[in-house]
Amino acid sequence: MEKTMDKIVALSKGRGFVYPGSELYGGLSNSWDYGPLGVELKNNIKKAWWKRFIQESPYNVGLDSAILMNPEVWKASGHVDSFSDPLMDCKECKARFRADKLVEDHMTEQGVEYASADGKTEAELKAYIDEHGIVCPKCGKKNFTDIRKFNLMFKTYLGITDESKTEIYLRPETAQGIFVNFKNIARTTRKKVPFGIGQIGKSFRNEITPGNFIFRTREFEQMELEFFCKPGTDLEWFAFWKKYCMEFLTDLGLTEENLRMRDHAPEELSFYSVGTADIEYRFPFGWGELWGIADRTDYDLMQHATHAKTDMMYMDPVTNEKYVPYCVEPSVGVDRLFLSFLSDAYEEEELEGGDVRTVLKFHPAIAPVKAAILPLSKKLSEKAMEVYAQLSKHFQCEYDDAGSIGKRYRRQDEIGTPYCITIDFDTLEDQTVTVRDRDTMEQIRLSVFDLIDYIEKKLVF
Amino acid sequence: MEKTMDKIVALSKGRGFVYPGSELYGGLSNSWDYGPLGVELKNNIKKAWWKRFIQESPYNVGLDSAILMNPEVWKASGHVDSFSDPLMDCKECKARFRADKLVEDHMTEQGVEYASADGKTEAELKAYIDEHGIVCPKCGKKNFTDIRKFNLMFKTYLGITDESKTEIYLRPETAQGIFVNFKNIARTTRKKVPFGIGQIGKSFRNEITPGNFIFRTREFEQMELEFFCKPGTDLEWFAFWKKYCMEFLTDLGLTEENLRMRDHAPEELSFYSVGTADIEYRFPFGWGELWGIADRTDYDLMQHATHAKTDMMYMDPVTNEKYVPYCVEPSVGVDRLFLSFLSDAYEEEELEGGDVRTVLKFHPAIAPVKAAILPLSKKLSEKAMEVYAQLSKHFQCEYDDAGSIGKRYRRQDEIGTPYCITIDFDTLEDQTVTVRDRDTMEQIRLSVFDLIDYIEKKLVF
Repeated sequence: MEKTMDKIVALSKGRGFVYPGSELYGGLSNSWDYGPLGVELKNNIKKAWWKRFIQESPYNVGLDSAILMNPEVWKASGHVDSFSDPLMDCKECKARFRADKLVEDHMTEQGVEYASADGKTEAELKAYIDEHGIVCPKCGKKNFTDIRKFNLMFKTYLGITDESKTEIYLRPETAQGIFVNFKNIARTTRKKVPFGIGQIGKSFRNEITPGNFIFRTREFEQMELEFFCKPGTDLEWFAFWKKYCMEFLTDLGLTEENLRMRDHAPEELSFYSVGTADIEYRFPFGWGELWGIADRTDYDLMQHATHAKTDMMYMDPVTNEKYVPYCVEPSVGVDRLFLSFLSDAYEEEELEGGDVRTVLKFHPAIAPVKAAILPLSKKLSEKAMEVYAQLSKHFQCEYDDAGSIGKRYRRQDEIGTPYCITIDFDTLEDQTVTVRDRDTMEQIRLSVFDLIDYIEKKLVF
Repeated sequence: MEKTMDKIVALSKGRGFVYPGSELYGGLSNSWDYGPLGVELKNNIKKAWWKRFIQESPYNVGLDSAILMNPEVWKASGHVDSFSDPLMDCKECKARFRADKLVEDHMTEQGVEYASADGKTEAELKAYIDEHGIVCPKCGKKNFTDIRKFNLMFKTYLGITDESKTEIYLRPETAQGIFVNFKNIARTTRKKVPFGIGQIGKSFRNEITPGNFIFRTREFEQMELEFFCKPGTDLEWFAFWKKYCMEFLTDLGLTEENLRMRDHAPEELSFYSVGTADIEYRFPFGWGELWGIADRTDYDLMQHATHAKTDMMYMDPVTNEKYVPYCVEPSVGVDRLFLSFLSDAYEEEELEGGDVRTVLKFHPAIAPVKAAILPLSKKLSEKAMEVYAQLSKHFQCEYDDAGSIGKRYRRQDEIGTPYCITIDFDTLEDQTVTVRDRDTMEQIRLSVFDLIDYIEKKLVF
């Protein structure tokens, strides 16, 4: 069977994973709402990240900084000056394009395996386009305007009177909230370098070409870690976090052959980075960036030190050495991770007799619903509700008493529920139930008193 | 001892619960960042709400809709026309005031117990101010402008070309994301009325008078449930959710005498509401609204039915009756709940010998750190780290080996850690540790193998 975006989008809408945003009013650009199953999957992904990167890590602590920040932050970080798309218009047909995308598409056509225009200046992009005679993809003519920069930050205004209104931005990344709190956290947690600060939160970018379902959206959620270490140890930590991120993905069941680690070539690197790698995932539409891991040196802290006229020095309490820490940043988008887990889990299996079942083979830790309670008869609803009430104190359950048991199994397979629990008349006598495994479809008989333990053990990750 | 906002703010900043937002750049209005302990407390509050209102409720499902919505949503909901503060300026000193606040402050001075200007029209506010001769609180003169409305929604622009730019808003509430998805969810979850849809997420209001620490901020987080039921059953459900919300608070340990339920008087009600109640909490600065529970009838669904020219009818699959469901809305702010838990937990206890300990008596379910691992000697760090690694797979722990054990206990008391686990030389021999209870300060001896079970049982809520 072929795994296509169309099938995944259709399942998402049909079963309540993801709905088009503002659908009642014809939508809003490429915005999406996470439905009852989607929000559970998304929360489970965030919980898994928090567990692995914050809770279990002796190095790291969490943070939840505000989306609205003082605009000076974005001057210091460089976003006001240079967080922009290089746009050019076709003078003939008035269509607008991203110059870097035109270049990348051309490179791909030429058979370049990792087509990337990252790190190219405007002049270099323009030169490439001229040299290779790239034409307008829409009308086929060759008559572009010069490249102009369009800043990707959303602007808004704080306060109300004309005199006191402040122009502010919706944050385009969560990372700066971490950098500006570096000293607060070092002071109040008594953490010693090396240590990291992680956070999960919404960011906003006014992209001109959002698309591929939830892969690229203007409003999105990030999980970022800024890991501060002593200069000179940064490349070791860079390697450490690359491995750590990859293990996170494979431990949660992503197929290894759909993952690859791509180290950026020197010419792709930002001028301040001494190493950047992307973990890419093979989506149904092709390979796409999932997780960026970058050695950012002391660039960000130094920018704030200069701009805020403050000292970002850290003093090692043991050696008394003073230095501005280097920073390694693993940064991943929740929505992209969601899409990779969803498309990785998607399978259509041919069963004996020719039937096809659609099944989402999620790791139980991220499955939206952990167990479905299925009474074999409406007469068993009291007992079934009792089991539902007990189990739902521990994890997300669904109760389904409608239709044949086979249909109910299919419905649960399609949303990735790892365990179906059937309540039958024997349950009333001996307190046992049937537990069906989503992947093997095998059934075992268990005491209701052992259910919670049995399932919770499977959720360990 | 007196519990003051100053003490709570100082502890918050000093221990990493809450820092001033963008502090490095002089702050930004009344914005705040949640530090390493704050984010844990906040996450625990959100998890507790989700568990009680979504996971355990056989009626409710979750949602996570986008912050940026089609602007038609806010026309339909009434926010574009009437989500505004009634402002007036003093012509003498140019100060600006909220007319409703002037009226409420005057009522309070006159000894009115529940001073509320809710539901008063502009004309009524103006009349009250004139009648009672209210003067400018700043200069004492009596020369106000007329009342003008100032819309509280933040505006921004989506898209980039002048022709295609769309003026949109940051959502001022999460509720509308629920209403516009009512039909999507009814269709894809096969839920039958009565059922509810809950969500947690950021909202934004350009308030002219934010303040009282995190009590009123321009960026804040809401936990809203919209519960749809058959018309005529709404007042029963209204009573049901009032009780349910109150129990949530007391089950998580909020002191009953700091809570009160206030039913709105008929003249305070919105024109579409047939019943509204506030759960109020006694903050150190006085009583403040914590949770609003409102019977909103079919107002919201009907607004969208009219505006989007769509049908919001629900057909009961058993009786075949058709109706637009009524809606009961319990809506609470995470930040306010955070402040109420923090201030409720705060205590200064005089110990034998005259020492004072500051302790946060959080319910273990919401305590930011569940257990602190304290090796009595640096020589025990290997064993202690082993215990830390085991426990931190299950819940948030802290490792502290600095200073005397007494000092370490005080530090944990001050951040509300319910259990301190001391590793001593006997631990190496017999695998037992000392567990100290935060509230009673009593110590017991436990096997390391029983620790996880012992603590997890205490986290049940």
